[in-house]
Amino acid sequence: MNKIKIAVVQLGVPDERDLAVDKAERLVRKAAGMGANIVLLPELFQTPYFCQERRYEHYELALSADKDPAVLRFTEITRELSLVMPISFYERDVNSFYNSIAMLDSGELLGIYRKTHIPDDHFYQEKFYFSPGDTGFKVWETRFGKIGVGICWDQWFPESARCMTLMGAELLLYPTAIGSEPIIECDSMPHWRRCMQGHAAANIVPVAAANRVGTERITPDDSNAGQSSELTFYGSSFITDCYGEILETCDRTSDDVIISEFDLDKCRSARQEWGVFRDRRPEMYGIISGKNC
Amino acid sequence: MNKIKIAVVQLGVPDERDLAVDKAERLVRKAAGMGANIVLLPELFQTPYFCQERRYEHYELALSADKDPAVLRFTEITRELSLVMPISFYERDVNSFYNSIAMLDSGELLGIYRKTHIPDDHFYQEKFYFSPGDTGFKVWETRFGKIGVGICWDQWFPESARCMTLMGAELLLYPTAIGSEPIIECDSMPHWRRCMQGHAAANIVPVAAANRVGTERITPDDSNAGQSSELTFYGSSFITDCYGEILETCDRTSDDVIISEFDLDKCRSARQEWGVFRDRRPEMYGIISGKNC
Repeated sequence: MNKIKIAVVQLGVPDERDLAVDKAERLVRKAAGMGANIVLLPELFQTPYFCQERRYEHYELALSADKDPAVLRFTEITRELSLVMPISFYERDVNSFYNSIAMLDSGELLGIYRKTHIPDDHFYQEKFYFSPGDTGFKVWETRFGKIGVGICWDQWFPESARCMTLMGAELLLYPTAIGSEPIIECDSMPHWRRCMQGHAAANIVPVAAANRVGTERITPDDSNAGQSSELTFYGSSFITDCYGEILETCDRTSDDVIISEFDLDKCRSARQEWGVFRDRRPEMYGIISGKNC
Repeated sequence: MNKIKIAVVQLGVPDERDLAVDKAERLVRKAAGMGANIVLLPELFQTPYFCQERRYEHYELALSADKDPAVLRFTEITRELSLVMPISFYERDVNSFYNSIAMLDSGELLGIYRKTHIPDDHFYQEKFYFSPGDTGFKVWETRFGKIGVGICWDQWFPESARCMTLMGAELLLYPTAIGSEPIIECDSMPHWRRCMQGHAAANIVPVAAANRVGTERITPDDSNAGQSSELTFYGSSFITDCYGEILETCDRTSDDVIISEFDLDKCRSARQEWGVFRDRRPEMYGIISGKNC
């Protein structure tokens, strides 16, 4: 038996960075009080989702990990509370910018993963802000299991989940910021969930996703070329078992903490007994990695 | 608009091969009467699931496509009824044996796909009967769209679905024979479905799966080393839309025909607008195809 408890924090993000980090800390302390070993916060939880509009001054939000307020704050909190936490932040590296997570284990920075897949749509204008990640997928050996983290858009790609599982991930975590689609007017929530339930089912690993809630509005001014828009983030954060069944879920609008316990040894047995890793045929998959079959 | 109708046939398989092909024909004619353009039958529907036990004489069931009774029968039926049908059969190629489908379009044999992933468990002893397929994944340009077919165990692999979609598949079809797990005693049905719903969701293509129903028993004798067992195939055949939502489903025990209509142009727009193919990073996926990242 190798039991761990993972908590997912869902929250609406205050306008002020300090208040946002304070709020995240309160909810993380609540999760720790519930017995969590691993706590997952949403993507870019220190600020409103600035990618809704294009403004050069938002580049100034990006900082290196050793200067980012949330990374610094949670380094201390994970040390105090013996937690494992991936902290999503806007990372500056000289003149390049990345959508990154800093992986923290009990006060130690295990490393950084930079979001591999960068979306771009009318009000999710991420290619303006982030270079595609250059770290490759990462799996960290933490005191509570081997953990792979994908960031938001990464969660749509079966390749991300498969690469991380092949690298040894026993748990997949996805910090997220996703909501309404004002142009195509769809509710992508069920599609979004099914995609990640599929990753859990196919890779036989538990999956957790943390999303934000609330409506964030943009009013037009010169520096955003007169854009007027709003996004409503749909929450619905969840945790699945290693067969993709949803164990715990948040609603679409509330700040919340959910928690599930897993026996990682049991999940490992399930992966072995089901035989899908034994029966892979890598030589047949060349088209996926851009090689000819 | 580019509308097509796909039907899935679920059935219990009679002991006699001729009766099994007759029964399949009756249900296919019913599907055609409902307006189907594409009809999907379960895996190896000409015989009870012989892989439940090991018997050398079952190798004699394997035939080349030009001699297989079901391939021959449905060549005529697809010509008569202007149907597209992948016909699952046990294929002999000199001294090798494959779990194959023959892709038929209105009386024409478009080609053969040999199951890439071969399972092996106590009563699904397929590695005894089938070599791993050597054709690679296949996508056929039919008169009713570009169709990719995975065979049963292939459906558990996100790589199969992704390869076929990258090769241009607009629809994914999975003939199947899956049921109880007498040793691990799980009901894999929800896991099985979620896996394929995930393929639909991640690749933004409709998915259909046809399974058999009924309990098939093995009584011990010398040539099967005294095996006594039974498998209950759980049906639950289904069709999803291109977001992985289940549109039509069969129950766990009945012969049945289900049908759904799709506008393939609409699905293509959805794939384009969602942007996941635009944002892939093949250079990051090397581990999937056995190359170092």
